[in-house]
Amino acid sequence: MALNRAEVHNMAAGPSPLPTSVLQQAAKGLLNYNGTGMGVCELSHRGKEFKGIVEKAEADLRELLQIPDSHAVLFTQGGGTTQFSSVFLNMLAYHRLKSKDVPAEQYSPPTVDYIVTGAWSSKASAEAKRLAVPPTPNAQALANVHIAATTKPTKFNRVPRKEEYNFTNDAAYVYYCENETINGVQFAGDVDSPAAVPFDLIPNDVPIVADYSSSFISRPIPHIERHALIYAGAQKNLGPAGVVVVIVRKDLLVDTNEAALLGGVPVCPIELEYKILADNGSLYNTPPVFSIYVSQLVLRYLIEEKGGMAGVKETNEKKAKLLYAALEEAERKGLVRLTVSDREARSWMNVTWVIDEADGDEESSREKRFLKGAEAQGFRQIKGHRSVGGIRASIYNAVSLESVQELVNYIKNWAAAEKWM
Amino acid sequence: MALNRAEVHNMAAGPSPLPTSVLQQAAKGLLNYNGTGMGVCELSHRGKEFKGIVEKAEADLRELLQIPDSHAVLFTQGGGTTQFSSVFLNMLAYHRLKSKDVPAEQYSPPTVDYIVTGAWSSKASAEAKRLAVPPTPNAQALANVHIAATTKPTKFNRVPRKEEYNFTNDAAYVYYCENETINGVQFAGDVDSPAAVPFDLIPNDVPIVADYSSSFISRPIPHIERHALIYAGAQKNLGPAGVVVVIVRKDLLVDTNEAALLGGVPVCPIELEYKILADNGSLYNTPPVFSIYVSQLVLRYLIEEKGGMAGVKETNEKKAKLLYAALEEAERKGLVRLTVSDREARSWMNVTWVIDEADGDEESSREKRFLKGAEAQGFRQIKGHRSVGGIRASIYNAVSLESVQELVNYIKNWAAAEKWM
Repeated sequence: MALNRAEVHNMAAGPSPLPTSVLQQAAKGLLNYNGTGMGVCELSHRGKEFKGIVEKAEADLRELLQIPDSHAVLFTQGGGTTQFSSVFLNMLAYHRLKSKDVPAEQYSPPTVDYIVTGAWSSKASAEAKRLAVPPTPNAQALANVHIAATTKPTKFNRVPRKEEYNFTNDAAYVYYCENETINGVQFAGDVDSPAAVPFDLIPNDVPIVADYSSSFISRPIPHIERHALIYAGAQKNLGPAGVVVVIVRKDLLVDTNEAALLGGVPVCPIELEYKILADNGSLYNTPPVFSIYVSQLVLRYLIEEKGGMAGVKETNEKKAKLLYAALEEAERKGLVRLTVSDREARSWMNVTWVIDEADGDEESSREKRFLKGAEAQGFRQIKGHRSVGGIRASIYNAVSLESVQELVNYIKNWAAAEKWM
Repeated sequence: MALNRAEVHNMAAGPSPLPTSVLQQAAKGLLNYNGTGMGVCELSHRGKEFKGIVEKAEADLRELLQIPDSHAVLFTQGGGTTQFSSVFLNMLAYHRLKSKDVPAEQYSPPTVDYIVTGAWSSKASAEAKRLAVPPTPNAQALANVHIAATTKPTKFNRVPRKEEYNFTNDAAYVYYCENETINGVQFAGDVDSPAAVPFDLIPNDVPIVADYSSSFISRPIPHIERHALIYAGAQKNLGPAGVVVVIVRKDLLVDTNEAALLGGVPVCPIELEYKILADNGSLYNTPPVFSIYVSQLVLRYLIEEKGGMAGVKETNEKKAKLLYAALEEAERKGLVRLTVSDREARSWMNVTWVIDEADGDEESSREKRFLKGAEAQGFRQIKGHRSVGGIRASIYNAVSLESVQELVNYIKNWAAAEKWM
């Protein structure tokens, strides 16, 4: 049975829904961009049309997130996973160049601090360890990868408490993932919350790196100016998979080959070096034109039709409150368990809960009934990530308040029915 | 003035035109894929719909190019430029693992052989040199980058002659670029041509790596089975920019971290490691879904509507012959100069010539008149690359024989008019 867009509530964790009006515009641009007789994917990336798209995307992003002039905005490829490597290699080069006068044999590899709050920050720290292999078996590792705090022992059910952080004074950088898509745990947007990123505990001159992939442009970024680097894969709130935005302090744009020639740090593959991208206005080689184009349309749409970052934040907060309230009610009845125990660290984007655990009956489990019923009501892609199970409703920017209200109604009806089973 | 697609002849060098019927289908899929009520960019890459797209794309590509079972087909990101680095890092790891028992202090870095025939192979060899920086200033470079032949002294106006090649017996690999997009020079498709890739001169056990970005699926790949690795960026003949196809011999899929632990070679960033991609069916992280989707539609279209590889080759050969014949005629009249002097090495995809050189008058130059007239007739994006100047007509798969015929007519009329000026 063929369905139309209005009949489904797509709550996928990523790739995720995009606004219908944006997709309609993109479909036109695909065949004919601005009356050029050529589609947007058929234009030279060096021509004035495409350069205009990149410039507009950057300007709108700067406006939405209040990005300071001290930072460059780059569009690149390879997904967030490639950034795990880029961050490590570029930050190591930056650190090496700060001590240019130290000869190779006297240079001691730095420590890099990771805050681990879920699957993605775990992967990021694992990649740092993987890349830190010493050049010869008896030499020192290229960096000491230090876990500054982790909530793994409690299955990532919260962010660390202030007293659990253990930062290194002269770390090459501190890394965190603002929103953990799989685990549904997010640092609080309010900087005064105990679940906020612990900016006050991080030594002043240590660069801060953040993965914002799954919460990008869903609300303002607290202390954006304090970050050395923020990156985000597009495929949650911004546009089609294939483009990554990097916001990076300009003094961090370094020649990794120059650093490697000093000894003690590896060269970064050219396409992964931020300086190369910045020097070429994100057009060092052919960029992912369609993903950038749709992202630009989404940014414009947020400014023109959604009230900018303030409007988007307000709607997202309402959506999250509504859904968590319904789930908390079901939790009190013993029907579900919210996997993030600390309310202030519950994600506004990925709402995760389990059902079976409260039931125990595998065959005719509540979870199966829940999912089957949800499917029939048009909810899509709400099964939890294969690594953690359960249910996950991802309520990114393009998921409307009405869709969330429908889910809340569904949960309430389901809970009422379950009580009598 | 708004133009429609039928009014322009888009001869861009890349991103390049795509078949209109494919774009129409893609525009529908963008809003609603197969009646799911969700667009193709909004589907989970781990769901059955998207996995189906990847599987179909691979199957069609295997059929079109007769890819042997010994080789894996991967879809990745980062453009051809990222492959410059990936090739070097993965091939070095492969070479290191072949001599697992050699301790780090006895391991000597290998030579890598590059055939340089234009801008892209120059860049590829430069990246190998850039990455080969020794781990400490007094150590050996990670590899000796050797130019096995180059036509740079004659401004890349041909491919090397047989006697000009100087291959290394135990090279870690030999690298070539089959078609140089900027310079309009291509190895001959006929293996018996003196302008063919010199397979007979390359030692049997030396792996061969080829960049096929701008001639991919334009005709069969000679000796495909002899290649260790072939890669191609999509944005010429295959689909929208953002995806790269890698065809790689399965025994070359190695763990670069394992190799680095032996000492003497660096670790490859995880997303650039072929083994990781292969182990995860190209879905290690979120792939560029839209680019893969459109590529799959293009492959189907070539099989169903263009007579497969044989049909495509026949049309491309006709197009090239027609255009070169017209240009040769103008050359005999002293109006143009074809930049590739060796007929057998003239690209079927990127046809390059200069006009001003034959004229000399900068202000009212023939080249300007040519370009202005061409623009008025609907020809688009035919200015030569900024690094070489002149004219470049890129006549990829999606440029019809009729469009090429129109260009030929235009050239003839222009040449007739120029004679009287």
